[in-house]
This record gives sequence, C-alpha cells and structure tokens, in this order.
Amino acid sequence: MKLKIINGPNLNLLGNRETNIYGDISFENYLKQLQEKFKKAEIFYFQSNSEGEIITEIQDSEKDETNGIILNAAAYSHYSIAIRDAIKSISIPVVEVHISNIFSREKFRHKSVISAVCKGIISGFGLISYDLAIQSFIK
Amino acid sequence: MKLKIINGPNLNLLGNRETNIYGDISFENYLKQLQEKFKKAEIFYFQSNSEGEIITEIQDSEKDETNGIILNAAAYSHYSIAIRDAIKSISIPVVEVHISNIFSREKFRHKSVISAVCKGIISGFGLISYDLAIQSFIK
Amino acid sequence: MKLKIINGPNLNLLGNRETNIYGDISFENYLKQLQEKFKKAEIFYFQSNSEGEIITEIQDSEKDETNGIILNAAAYSHYSIAIRDAIKSISIPVVEVHISNIFSREKFRHKSVISAVCKGIISGFGLISYDLAIQSFIK
Amino acid sequence: MKLKIINGPNLNLLGNRETNIYGDISFENYLKQLQEKFKKAEIFYFQSNSEGEIITEIQDSEKDETNGIILNAAAYSHYSIAIRDAIKSISIPVVEVHISNIFSREKFRHKSVISAVCKGIISGFGLISYDLAIQSFIK
Amino acid sequence: MKLKIINGPNLNLLGNRETNIYGDISFENYLKQLQEKFKKAEIFYFQSNSEGEIITEIQDSEKDETNGIILNAAAYSHYSIAIRDAIKSISIPVVEVHISNIFSREKFRHKSVISAVCKGIISGFGLISYDLAIQSFIK
Amino acid sequence: MKLKIINGPNLNLLGNRETNIYGDISFENYLKQLQEKFKKAEIFYFQSNSEGEIITEIQDSEKDETNGIILNAAAYSHYSIAIRDAIKSISIPVVEVHISNIFSREKFRHKSVISAVCKGIISGFGLISYDLAIQSFIK
Amino acid sequence: MKLKIINGPNLNLLGNRETNIYGDISFENYLKQLQEKFKKAEIFYFQSNSEGEIITEIQDSEKDETNGIILNAAAYSHYSIAIRDAIKSISIPVVEVHISNIFSREKFRHKSVISAVCKGIISGFGLISYDLAIQSFIK
Amino acid sequence: MKLKIINGPNLNLLGNRETNIYGDISFENYLKQLQEKFKKAEIFYFQSNSEGEIITEIQDSEKDETNGIILNAAAYSHYSIAIRDAIKSISIPVVEVHISNIFSREKFRHKSVISAVCKGIISGFGLISYDLAIQSFIK
Amino acid sequence: MKLKIINGPNLNLLGNRETNIYGDISFENYLKQLQEKFKKAEIFYFQSNSEGEIITEIQDSEKDETNGIILNAAAYSHYSIAIRDAIKSISIPVVEVHISNIFSREKFRHKSVISAVCKGIISGFGLISYDLAIQSFIK
Amino acid sequence: MKLKIINGPNLNLLGNRETNIYGDISFENYLKQLQEKFKKAEIFYFQSNSEGEIITEIQDSEKDETNGIILNAAAYSHYSIAIRDAIKSISIPVVEVHISNIFSREKFRHKSVISAVCKGIISGFGLISYDLAIQSFIK
Amino acid sequence: MKLKIINGPNLNLLGNRETNIYGDISFENYLKQLQEKFKKAEIFYFQSNSEGEIITEIQDSEKDETNGIILNAAAYSHYSIAIRDAIKSISIPVVEVHISNIFSREKFRHKSVISAVCKGIISGFGLISYDLAIQSFIK
Amino acid sequence: MKLKIINGPNLNLLGNRETNIYGDISFENYLKQLQEKFKKAEIFYFQSNSEGEIITEIQDSEKDETNGIILNAAAYSHYSIAIRDAIKSISIPVVEVHISNIFSREKFRHKSVISAVCKGIISGFGLISYDLAIQSFIK
Repeated sequence: MKLKIINGPNLNLLGNRETNIYGDISFENYLKQLQEKFKKAEIFYFQSNSEGEIITEIQDSEKDETNGIILNAAAYSHYSIAIRDAIKSISIPVVEVHISNIFSREKFRHKSVISAVCKGIISGFGLISYDLAIQSFIK
Repeated sequence: MKLKIINGPNLNLLGNRETNIYGDISFENYLKQLQEKFKKAEIFYFQSNSEGEIITEIQDSEKDETNGIILNAAAYSHYSIAIRDAIKSISIPVVEVHISNIFSREKFRHKSVISAVCKGIISGFGLISYDLAIQSFIK
Repeated sequence: MKLKIINGPNLNLLGNRETNIYGDISFENYLKQLQEKFKKAEIFYFQSNSEGEIITEIQDSEKDETNGIILNAAAYSHYSIAIRDAIKSISIPVVEVHISNIFSREKFRHKSVISAVCKGIISGFGLISYDLAIQSFIK
Repeated sequence: MKLKIINGPNLNLLGNRETNIYGDISFENYLKQLQEKFKKAEIFYFQSNSEGEIITEIQDSEKDETNGIILNAAAYSHYSIAIRDAIKSISIPVVEVHISNIFSREKFRHKSVISAVCKGIISGFGLISYDLAIQSFIK
Repeated sequence: MKLKIINGPNLNLLGNRETNIYGDISFENYLKQLQEKFKKAEIFYFQSNSEGEIITEIQDSEKDETNGIILNAAAYSHYSIAIRDAIKSISIPVVEVHISNIFSREKFRHKSVISAVCKGIISGFGLISYDLAIQSFIK
Repeated sequence: MKLKIINGPNLNLLGNRETNIYGDISFENYLKQLQEKFKKAEIFYFQSNSEGEIITEIQDSEKDETNGIILNAAAYSHYSIAIRDAIKSISIPVVEVHISNIFSREKFRHKSVISAVCKGIISGFGLISYDLAIQSFIK
Repeated sequence: MKLKIINGPNLNLLGNRETNIYGDISFENYLKQLQEKFKKAEIFYFQSNSEGEIITEIQDSEKDETNGIILNAAAYSHYSIAIRDAIKSISIPVVEVHISNIFSREKFRHKSVISAVCKGIISGFGLISYDLAIQSFIK
Repeated sequence: MKLKIINGPNLNLLGNRETNIYGDISFENYLKQLQEKFKKAEIFYFQSNSEGEIITEIQDSEKDETNGIILNAAAYSHYSIAIRDAIKSISIPVVEVHISNIFSREKFRHKSVISAVCKGIISGFGLISYDLAIQSFIK
Repeated sequence: MKLKIINGPNLNLLGNRETNIYGDISFENYLKQLQEKFKKAEIFYFQSNSEGEIITEIQDSEKDETNGIILNAAAYSHYSIAIRDAIKSISIPVVEVHISNIFSREKFRHKSVISAVCKGIISGFGLISYDLAIQSFIK
Repeated sequence: MKLKIINGPNLNLLGNRETNIYGDISFENYLKQLQEKFKKAEIFYFQSNSEGEIITEIQDSEKDETNGIILNAAAYSHYSIAIRDAIKSISIPVVEVHISNIFSREKFRHKSVISAVCKGIISGFGLISYDLAIQSFIK
Repeated sequence: MKLKIINGPNLNLLGNRETNIYGDISFENYLKQLQEKFKKAEIFYFQSNSEGEIITEIQDSEKDETNGIILNAAAYSHYSIAIRDAIKSISIPVVEVHISNIFSREKFRHKSVISAVCKGIISGFGLISYDLAIQSFIK
Repeated sequence: MKLKIINGPNLNLLGNRETNIYGDISFENYLKQLQEKFKKAEIFYFQSNSEGEIITEIQDSEKDETNGIILNAAAYSHYSIAIRDAIKSISIPVVEVHISNIFSREKFRHKSVISAVCKGIISGFGLISYDLAIQSFIK
C-alpha cells in the first residue's frame, strides 16, 4: 500500500513556527517515526508553498499508483477551489488533516472548501492527526 | 484507562436507518468489536435521544473517573449550546466523531457548535471514526 | 389504518394559552370529535414537552405499525434537527401541521427545519389543520 | 357557496410538464373530479401566465360574489408583492396551495411572499392539495 | 406642459381597499380636482395591473410628447427591474410617488428598485403626494 | 402657521460645497425666497453640525408652538437613532427632505433611520424639496 | 409572595465549573442566603438540564400560584423557542437573569430568544443578579 | 432547423435607447442580417414587454416545433422565476444571451435566475451575442 | 460612596414623552425618591442630548472620585462606539440601564454597543431599573 | 490575427477527469480541430496549474502581440483577484469561457471575479465554448 | 505650510488610558516633539469629544488656510458619515491616522467610513503614525 | 539595518499599467531613489506573481537576517491566508503598503486578510507609501 502525505504552505516551518500551536518537532523527524511504525505501508512525503505544485502532485498520484492521500492543505484549505477540483479529478481517496483544531481558531479557519470532496477529516490531534489518517487507510 | 462513548439522537437506529449513509450493523455489535480490539481500555457506552440526559452523562464523567469521552452528538452537534457548555464544564478531553462526512451533506450540518470546545474532530470514516477516536486516546 | 397525532411543547395548554391565537377548546376534546368523524381510522395521540420523547415516539411508530403521522412539533419545528432526523429515519409518511399560519407570525416562525422531510404541510386552519391532515391520509 | 381556483404560470401545462414532480393528469380533468365530489359548492377555475391578469381576477372576486379563493400562484408566489397586495385588498379568504412540497425543493422556493396574507397554506399533497383546500372552506 | 400620471397594480381599487391606509376617495375623483387646480398643465392618467403595460406606457411617453411622468408603481416598485429599465430608456423626467410612507410599513416596502433612476421621490402625503409631484414639474 | 426648517451637518456650506450635487446658492438666500413666496406661514430656520443641538431644537418645537418641522438631517439621517427618538417624542409632524436623490448615491445613503417616524419624505428636487415640503403643510 | 427560581442546564455545577466566570459557591448555598435575606417572600428552586422539564415547570407555575419567576435558562436562552413559548403561555411575570455579562462573551451568547417575552433582564452581576431580580418583585 | 429568438422588455427600443450600451441599430435590421447569414436555419423572432406573454411563447415552442430558443430576457432575467419554470417545462434547449456584459454593470444584474436551466450563456458581445448563440445550435 | 447617574438623549423628556412606554413621572422627581431611599450613597445626576458631553462626563468621573456610574445612554447605546471607548478608558465600573425592555422593541434596539464594556445590564423594569442598579453597587 | 487560449488548473486532465461533465477528448486533440477550422487565425495554447504562471502569460501577451485571449481560468475564476488585475493591466480583449454551465453547478461556482473585466463570457457549450469565443474575435 | 492635527473622542486621555494599547505619553508632549522636528511646517492641534465640533473644525480649515489635515477621528471613524461629508466638502487633503492597528482589534474597528474620502491611511505605528502623516505632506 | 521590499502580482508592470492609478515610473527606478535617500539602510527588492514564491521569500527573511519587511501583496492582500500565515510564522515586523487608497476603490479591495498580522498599514500615497514605510523602520 502506497500512501502519500502532502503538506501545504508554511508547514515546512513545523517545529520552528508558532510552537505553542504546532509543537516543536519538524515534520521530517515525525515522518521517520511514522515510517517506522507503519512498516507495511510505503509513506511518501511532499511539501510545497505553491498551490499549483500541490495540484500537480495530487494529479500525479494516479500515475504513481498511490492508494491514499493524507492532505494538510493548511491555509489553502480555506479558499483553494483549485485544489478541491484536483481532488475531485482523481479517484484516489483523500483524507484531510489538520494539526490544530481549526474550529477553535479564527473564524475564517472554520470553513474548509476541500472537506466536501475528501473522504473524511481529522483535526486537532497535533501530529497524531497524521497517524490516525494513516490508520484510516491501513485498517 | 476508562473511555466513554456517548451517542446522540437517532443513533440507536444505527444499522436500520438510512443504511446507505450509516451502514447496516448496529452500534451494539460494533461496540463489541471495539472492546475486543482495545483490551487495555475499558469502553463504556451511553445513548440517548434526550439533550438533557446527554448533558447529565457528560457531567457525570468526572465522578465516574472517565479519562476520555468520544461524543457523536448527531443532530445536537448543530445547535446544542447546552451540550457545548457541558463539555466546557468538565476537564476530561472530548473527541467529536461523526460517521458520515458532515461537510459533504446538507449545509446546516457543516456547522458544529461543539467542535470549538472539543480536543479534536474525526468525521467521515463510517464506524471506524470511533476506532480512530479511541486510538487518539490510547496512543 | 392507524394514524398517530404527535403534539409538541406547550400544546398541552391548548384551550387555555393565548386563546386569541389557538382557540379555546382543549386538544383532548377536539380529538374526540376527530375520532368520531373518522371512524375507519384508529387515531392515537401523543403529546410531550420533551424533544427526546418526541423523537422516541416517532421512532417507535414503525414498531407499532402506524400508517401515518400528523406532527405539530410547535416551537421545535423551528430548530430541532434531531426531530428532522427522526422523521427521515422512518419510512412512514409524516404530515406537518400548524394551528396558526406560521408565516404571518414572528419572523423566526417562518422557517421550519422539518418541512423538507415531511410529505406535506398544512398551516393556518385552526384545529381543522388536523382534520385536513387526516383526510390527506384516508383519501 | 362559490369557490374559485386560480392557477398561476405554467400550471396550464399540468399533466405534460415535469410529470415526476407534478403528476400526469391535466388540471381540467382533475377539476371535473373535484366538481363531481363537492356538489354543494360551485367551483370556478381561472389560469393565467400573466401576473396582471391574476391580480385582476383576484380583485374581481368580490364583484362576482366568490366566497373563497384557492390560489396556486406557482412561481409568482416567490416574488409577486403585487399579488400579495391584491389578496390584502379583498375581504375574501384565500388559501395558498402547492402541488409539490415547496420546502423540499430549491431554496428560492422556500419563501412565499403571499403566505402571510393568506388564511392558510397547504403544500405537498399533489393535486389533493386542492381537494383539502376546498374542504377547509366547506367544512 | 403635458404630464402623465401612471398608477400601478391595485391602485384601481383606491377608495375601496384598505381605506385606513389609502383613504376613501377614488383616484378618478381626485384626478378631477388635480386637473381643476393645475389648469396650465394637461394631466393624463393611466392605470394598469400589468407590468408589461406599464412599461409600454412609459416607453410611449416620448412619442406622445409627455413632459413629465408621475409614477406610483405600487408593489412593482419593490422588484420590477423591467420598469426601472423602461424609465432609464427614456429622457423624460419621472417622479416616484407613494400615497403611504413606504418606510414606515413592512420591511420589504422600504426598498424601491426604481428610485435610483427617478428624478426624485415623494412618499407619505396621501393623495397630496401627487399634487406635490405636479408642483415639482410646473414650478 | 409656524414652520421650522432644521438643517443638519455641513448644510451650512450650501452654495460652496460640491456644487455639482447641491447647487450654488446659499440656504440663507433661498430661505428669503421661501419666506417671500409663502407669506401666510412664519418660517423659522435652524442649522447645526451637532447631533445634540438638533435633538434639543426638535424637542423645543413644542414649547415654541411650531406647527410643522421640515428636517434635512443630512448625514445624521443615516445613523442618528437619537434624532429619530426626538422626532417620536414630539407630536408635531416632521417632513424629511433631501436636496439630492439619496437613492441614486452611495449605498449607505439609501437607508434613513428617521423616515419611519416622519410623516413623509421628499428627496431629489434640489432646494425645491423644501418648497414642496412647505406646501405639504399649508395645503 | 411566592417566587420561583428556575436554573437551566449546567447550573447544577455552579461552584465547580469555570469558577473564574461563575464564582465558587454552589447555588444551594447561595439560595439559603437569599431565603435568609428576603424573609417576606417564599423562594422556591428548580434546576434541570432538560429543556422539556423546564417548560413543564414554567407551565406548572400557574397551578402552584407562583407570583414571579426568576429564570436563568443558561445555554437554552440562546435557542429554545419552546421555553419562550412556555413563558408566553403563562401570565406570571418572568425576569431573565444571567450570572455573567452575556454581551461580553462569545458572539452566540449575545442573542437571547427569550428576552422579548420576559419582563426584564439582569445580566452580569454574578450571583447578585438573582438578588436584584428578587428585589424587582418585592419592591 | 427552426430557431426562435425571444427578446424581453425594453429590447423593442434597441437602436434608440442608451446607445452607448446597446448600440444604434434596431433589432429588426440586425435580424435581417442574421437571416441572410444563416440561410440553412429558419429564424423566428418574438419580443414582448410582458412576462406572461414571454412565458406563453416559450411554452408554445414545442407545438410549433422549434429546435432551439435564443432568449434575452433582459430585466426579467434577474427575477422571473416564472420564466425559469417555463424553460424547465419544455424539452427544447434554450441559450441565454445578453448584449452587454451583465457582470460589469450594476450588482443586481450579476445574478440571472434563468441561467441554471439554460444550456449556456453568452454575454457581452453586443448584437453578436445572438450570432454566436445561433452558431451554438447549427454547428 | 459616590454614584453618578448619566442619562442620554431625550431622557430629559421623561414623564412627558411616550408615557405608555416610559411612565409619567419626571426623572428629577424620581431622583429625589432614590436619594431619599439610598441615604448612605451620594447620588449625582447628569443628562445631555450631546454624545460629546456624555463622553466628557464619563471621563471626568475619575477626577471627581465617582465610585460607580449608572448609564442609560438611550439611543446612543445602539451606535456610539465613542461612548464605549470612554467607558473602557476609565477604571470605574459602569452599569447599563434601560427603562423599557430593549429586547422587546424594534430590532435595531436589540443591539447595544456598550454592553460588552459595562459590568452588567439591567433592562425593562421602568424607573426601578435605576434602583436595582444602585443596589448592585451598595450591596 | 494571433489568438491565445489560456487554460487554468486541472484542465490538463480534460478527457480523463469527470468525463460526464467535461467530455472525453483531450484539449490537445480539440485544439488541432480548432486550428484546422480557423486557418486565418494563429491559435496558441497555454495551460498551467499555477496562478502566478497564468498571470505572467497574460502579461506577456502584449509583448508577443496577441490580438485576443480566450481564458478558461477554471477554479481560479472564482477567487483570483490577481488574475483579474492581470487582465485589467493589459489592453488586449479577453473572453472568459467555461466548458460547463457554471451557473447550474455548485453555488460557489456562480460567481466569477474576472467576468467584470472581460469583454464577454461564454459558458456551457462544452468544448464548443472555445469555438464560439474564437468566432467572437474573427468575426 | 500649515498643517492641522485633529484628534477625536477620548484621545485627550492619551498617556493615561489603556496605556498597553496607546502608550504612556500625552499628545501635548508628543506634539512638541513634532513641532521641534518639522520646523518648516506650522503644526496646529485640535481635539474634541464632540462630532459636531470636529465637523466645524474641518470646515474652518479652508478659511484658516490650512494646507493639510491629519485626522485621527478615533471611534467616530467607524460611523460618522457626517465627518465623512465634512471631509468631502473641503478641497484640502486629509490623511487618516490611527495609533493602533485598527485591523487587528475588534471587528467593528476594521471598517472606517472616512477612509474612502481621505487621501491615504496610516495605521498601527503608535504616535509615529502622526510623524509619517506629516512627512507625507512635507515631502 | 536590512530592509526587504516585497511586491506582489502585477506590480512588475508599474509604470506601464493603469498609469492613472499607479503612476508612470517603474519600481526599479523608484527603488534607486529610495536607496539613494536612505543610505543607512540596505534595501533589498523582490517581486513575484506567484503566491508560493512570496511565501518562501517571507520565510527566508529570518535566515537572511532581514530587520523589516515592506510588503505590497497587491491582489493577494485580499484573499491569501497563506501569506498571512507566512507573516505570522516569522518574528520580523512587516509593514503593509498600498500605492492607491484601497478603501476608495472596488468593495472587494477594502478587506485585506493580512492587515491583522502586520505591524501597520500605509495606503494611498502613491510610491511615497514605500518611503513612509521605510521611515517607520529607520526612525
């Protein structure tokens, strides 16, 4: 089973930025823990600050035979209809994750334009949100 | 570790009602599978169609030394500020779960008034939403 | 043919309360007239101030082999998504009735969250709204 | 007792148009059934696609000594304040009817600008909505 | 100087309908008083319940060399963009009048879609609103 | 008959300010013309940039036995509920006037919070709006 | 004089829950102080987490000859039209109280659907809100 | 192939009215050019200021075996749900055209209530909008 | 203890204006009763129709060593952010009072922009609202 | 004449993605048909998933002497004010096209932020929308 | 060059009030620093809590030959259309300044009704906002 | 002191595009003037049409030891929550600048989603907005 984690803008700063909200370990380090734990899955990782590159990566997932996508589109979650359309254009299931609980933050973060085309949403468990998303696939 | 699953109105019909959305096994049966799988946790279950009884059950969780609550408030999620206040009045973490992806259904289901006071939200994975919620605690 | 009339909160006061809007005979007395008139139908009656009890009564209608429900959810009509879900969870047709014309009263009464899942709505004919609802079934 | 049924725009196509919503018998045929059934009432019929003609017909109802109007203003229900004013300008009671349940269709059909000045509303019973409206008068 | 008074839907009932709001003399009678008083102007009168006929009458005002239009579009004031376009399509000044004070009635009457393309608005003076509108022209 | 014209903020600049909208003669000069023309009425004049002073002047109108007020509250028309309350607190009729057509200007000028408690509104006739308002009283 | 204090959901936790907002003495203890202080009034107390039970208690107040109700409907204040209807259905005056200042908290707490049918509202004085409410009756 | 062009209110003035927006040739003249150019199609033309007549013309298109309708409903585009229903009631494809770009004009022209039931929309090309619409059919 | 009552616009008319809403005794007379009753407090009084003067009076309260302010800002309550800022700029507690129940009057009176920065609000008890406010301080 | 077709995000998938909405031939193939048909125009093609690249391509159109742009900005149509500004910054006419009828799809697709600065819009004709757009230029 | 600084309500308290937001030096002291620094400009100062006085001061700026106004209208920025009109009525450029960043405070402070008629806005730099505004003139 | 100016989409066209709004000198030329004038600061410049590249440049500012950022995000100001998050993720102060007064242009430009996380905003002074922003840092 091939799983792909796609992280959106500013998530390259995880571990540095606003550590009170996002914690203080980098995603690369956390990724190693996940790969260690879920050995029967191959877990790939992609991060970009660019909406266009995220769209292209989602589109490419059919070609590279990904079985499931774990997408934290970060700020783009709240307005990128283009990413929404990319998700709809593929047949691979996508799980939306957020590190923080987006519903207890600023009002404009309460609305995600991609939720409706994702299989499910997991929000608020810190980095463990990714772990739960993986389990939703390998279960 | 003591975990308590609280199900709101109409979830007593799981397995019968709108099986295209909610699947066809009853929650009681699924509960047994969960209890089987997560042996190191004690998993309790409460269901009620009554907003007041759900509030009281949440309040009682401190007395009965529950360590975590998994709450599917169903329709009450969308307007019960009273349940929101009950969650805020206790110090036990509460995870909000939904069987279906509430963001891909009718517009009035997109808003949950309790999300902001829960630790996190898991929505859209069928009954597996409960499984993931349990994992978020026992991890 | 078994029909069940379900009346929501404060309708136990019919005949006393705000008689300029609701008239001055109690529902129990009116029920007798209806039972007299529609002899070929069995007409049952349930009233509660509790949202949860109304939900349970609606759910039970399949078990007790009711053929049609006449529901005046009163104030709950305007916000009880839980009652809406109960109606959707059964296969028995439900007719929504209101004694007064809810559209000529306060603005918040113009919106009923249950109308969309009922078969039809009859509003504004005084107690005769119930009579017409019964006719919609036995016709 | 003289009753007048007034049908608004596109209802001349009943029996042809969108038969999944409106059924497949023409209103003329159904009218005969009604006249047959309710012999003690004289039932007149008027249909027009023109807002102005409907207004004039409503106004004329006092002159021709109509005792009650059954009005299906169709699409005009949702914006014709002019028809609303016509209803308010006469002292004859008007019952608003709709064949389909307007509250389970597109959002813009949920609001009727004429309901507030009608005696009552009956919506969702197919052609039987007219039958019930007549009963509300001859009862 | 040729002036044309155009009255919209239901104003043919003036003197009969809702006399507490609109007074009890017919417009025809009042018109005679106006013609008597303003002898140096020719005052023409047109009333219709039909939006289309009102549009055509406005359009025809250039051909018949009208110098000013006094328009009480009644209910159409609140939604007829088509009448608004007719006013904009001619170069004759149009004064909008209302018998009652539309701003102290129902909320939906507070908005007139034609005001912006009229020269001015006079509302609330009973039939004298027409008198003042004429004076605005012959002054 | 005693009439009082009350002009609100910035109307002291009439004749100077934005002459394309408001014309180029000062109100003092125009007032003389009005007093000349309407000899059988005593016409008083008050202008202030201060909301509080306008309120006090309106209140004082009962003491000084004013028979009618012509009020151009200018910008205060759009938000001064305090002036609205002052109008409501006296029994003298108040006519609201505006020099320009407020409905063809910026959106925030379309709403006047005082219209509902005035007898009528005259807007868009340049300084002649005042003339028409006087006529509405002495007619 | 018989007064009845009715407390809504989660107020049974007073003294424990969110003591920074609600203070740290239980309502039972405070009630004794009130009964001590206002000896010429009989003060009864009812608390429930259930909307239906609160409605029934309000309805019963006429039978048990209560002279005034002091109602802290807590979260239900913000959406329970059913409680609003119960208040309207009795002729006993009801004073709405809140311990905290609901207007300085979350936006959804700024709106109370019951205020309009209460005699008055007292909000923000801690438990002393109840004391003032009692004084409003016995004065 | 039979095509029918239907023009709504005020379009009879084309060539005269607001020529800066709509150009200065009449539709009758332009129609001749179209008929000349598209010889293999029969092109019929209907214009009315009346909403009701436009509805009837649309309905009649099935009887007169029209293959496609080119509809410029002008101002009615923005509120005539009755015309929308007429379009939905026939099986002939309808193309919505506008001479000007309705999206660069007043805000109330940005919304067309008929677009959703038309095959497509062409707006902003002057009279050439009609030409393109014809091509969409004969292609 | 020094208390200051500040009354806003039009409250100088108390006892005259709209006596059905506000009662028929002047505030000066009522003030004497209050001073009589609450002998251990010094009660000062200030009224103004001017927003600016009310702001200055609030600001001056620190200099004149006022211990508490009872503020009925009347119409200014609904829009004067400047008064709100004045309240916030001092450290003296302010209690907001209203004679009538502002929540049962026009919609625009339901919102007070100053409530959030006041200690509490008392509304609907007639002049007794002031009495209760004083008690909230001297208790 | 040089024309440039610019396609936005996910349109590189045409022919694969959601073929029920978008048809099943790739844009490259369709482009050849267009180039074949319109020989007197040079037709260039650009597609990108990146908002920034689309902006740059629009800007470059003046340098490369494009005479007209046919822009299907896809999802970016609904929020990219940056693309809107790019269109406004050049003097080349831009025609907005959409394959599907955006007005009969999800509500968020009904609003295009670029329409107002385009010459015209063509939506709903499948790939033929591009053909019509070309004709609007070469006519 | 003559510059005039106009400060609105509560800014007379600068240095005392909410020093965490506004700093702790009085404006009079800061003014001296500014006058020291910008010797080639004459800098005048006016402060008032009264909307009317601010309007009059703005109007008088033409008479006293001011070349530029630096306006911190404080709370009045958010609703005083009367001040907006005063700015529009003079031909002297006005720069809007705010000490704090109004866009990072309460939502109602995000909207300034005067910005649109000012030359520019400078917000968020503490007292230095005034310094920058002066530089925008003398540059 | 190192300062970095970041310009967003379409600002590479400055001096060409819409010169009535933005002036006719290129930013490169203006930059030289700024560098000349502010010799004690190092001023760097970055422009991109790509949201992602702007985010990355903002992130990189900590690494390259920038002391302050002057950001004109142009169109992205109005919707790029991703840029907002980038600003929040660094500890360097950011000043938002706009060449034109965004509050006197189209409504959608009145809202900037980044203002709340910037230190301050300077809008409307032409290119001098940048000069003032620099002064806010070097002062």
